[in-house]
Amino acid sequence: MVLTIDVGNTRIKGAVFENNTALEFFVFDKNELEKRIKNILNKFEKVTDLVVASVGNIGKDSFLVFNNVVNVCFLTNEDCFPFKNKYATPKTLGIDRIVLASGATLQYPNQNRLVIDAGTCITYDFVDENDNYLGGAISPGLRLRYEALHNYTAKLPLLTFEEPERYIGNSTPESMHSGVVNGFVYEIDGFIDQYKTDYLNFIIILTGGDALFLAKRLKNTIFANSNFLLESLNQTFQYKINND
Amino acid sequence: MVLTIDVGNTRIKGAVFENNTALEFFVFDKNELEKRIKNILNKFEKVTDLVVASVGNIGKDSFLVFNNVVNVCFLTNEDCFPFKNKYATPKTLGIDRIVLASGATLQYPNQNRLVIDAGTCITYDFVDENDNYLGGAISPGLRLRYEALHNYTAKLPLLTFEEPERYIGNSTPESMHSGVVNGFVYEIDGFIDQYKTDYLNFIIILTGGDALFLAKRLKNTIFANSNFLLESLNQTFQYKINND
Repeated sequence: MVLTIDVGNTRIKGAVFENNTALEFFVFDKNELEKRIKNILNKFEKVTDLVVASVGNIGKDSFLVFNNVVNVCFLTNEDCFPFKNKYATPKTLGIDRIVLASGATLQYPNQNRLVIDAGTCITYDFVDENDNYLGGAISPGLRLRYEALHNYTAKLPLLTFEEPERYIGNSTPESMHSGVVNGFVYEIDGFIDQYKTDYLNFIIILTGGDALFLAKRLKNTIFANSNFLLESLNQTFQYKINND
Repeated sequence: MVLTIDVGNTRIKGAVFENNTALEFFVFDKNELEKRIKNILNKFEKVTDLVVASVGNIGKDSFLVFNNVVNVCFLTNEDCFPFKNKYATPKTLGIDRIVLASGATLQYPNQNRLVIDAGTCITYDFVDENDNYLGGAISPGLRLRYEALHNYTAKLPLLTFEEPERYIGNSTPESMHSGVVNGFVYEIDGFIDQYKTDYLNFIIILTGGDALFLAKRLKNTIFANSNFLLESLNQTFQYKINND
């Protein structure tokens, strides 16, 4: 069994896999890291490997405490992955984006793949049908847009996500919900339209905390899987032990 | 002559008008307010009225010092405007949005008007052909998106605006420029498409600091005027003295 851990900018997510089947999923805060992982390892005694991808400010050291119980694999951009990395600055490519590209390459062979991860940030990652990773885009996620409106203006309140009833917001909160949520949806549809213009034989994978909401709203039909990063971590790990 | 002053979230902009002709434009920081306005009033001795709209944290008091030289008109949402305000929360409607709607109503009669102001925030304001102000949307502007990416993540740098060369960014900075700038453009085109679906007989006015750049990039053809808010301030003031 494998325990995969995704340290994001906001929260930590985890899943226990037996081969390719997820047995249980977890979400917790950074200050609960050690306690929660100990509990998971106690519950799933057959876990032999702990596989971590971190874009947050929690490094490899935080996981060494588990070294006496399981094999700790802290993925970095120096590991081997199933795609050819054409990124001009591979050292600054976030490990989350690498793992998503890796999962898309392994799970959807011989086609163009666009992975959209709608979390703290929205990341767009593209692997072409010849397994070349070409890069993509990064923009602020839903919550960041709400925070920016409040923190960088004198008079706008801090709101949390609400689905707007109409695109012409007829109050200040409705205007903010329309701007943030519709803007977010129009952005993603705009990127998808652009890729579709240039590439055929195409799969789009939508993941991240806002994936399920988004899947309903986009005009483009896409495949939404909130757990794609954790699944990709498991698959990337299997690929690594078969190819190292 | 009229000196119009727009206190935004980031900077102060001003213009001197003789009737409907702008004689000179100014941009300055908030800490230069008093000095710069004094200089302008010294240079343009015929200025009789100082007309202010402020969404920043500079209130009416800061302008009272000029009361002995000119007539100070600090616009608020309790003034009279040329449209019927259908906003559910008129007291929280930003004076910048009111003035833009007012300018659009006065300058483009008998048609549907959408004003898009791309500044610190992007504001969308819609006045229908019967002069009903219906509201709109607010989302983060270009700079706020760059700041949010840096301030709310552990590893992304703070960048300033650069036009992306391609939508598939092949480095971390290029990915950020693509996400921010293309996302911004796709959002605005998405909103325009939505309004166009529902309304005919339509004018779109694009203003704000990022208007000229945007006008080149949008797939929709629009009328860009960086100084529309200052012009609208002048026209709103003329309307006010004729209708008070």
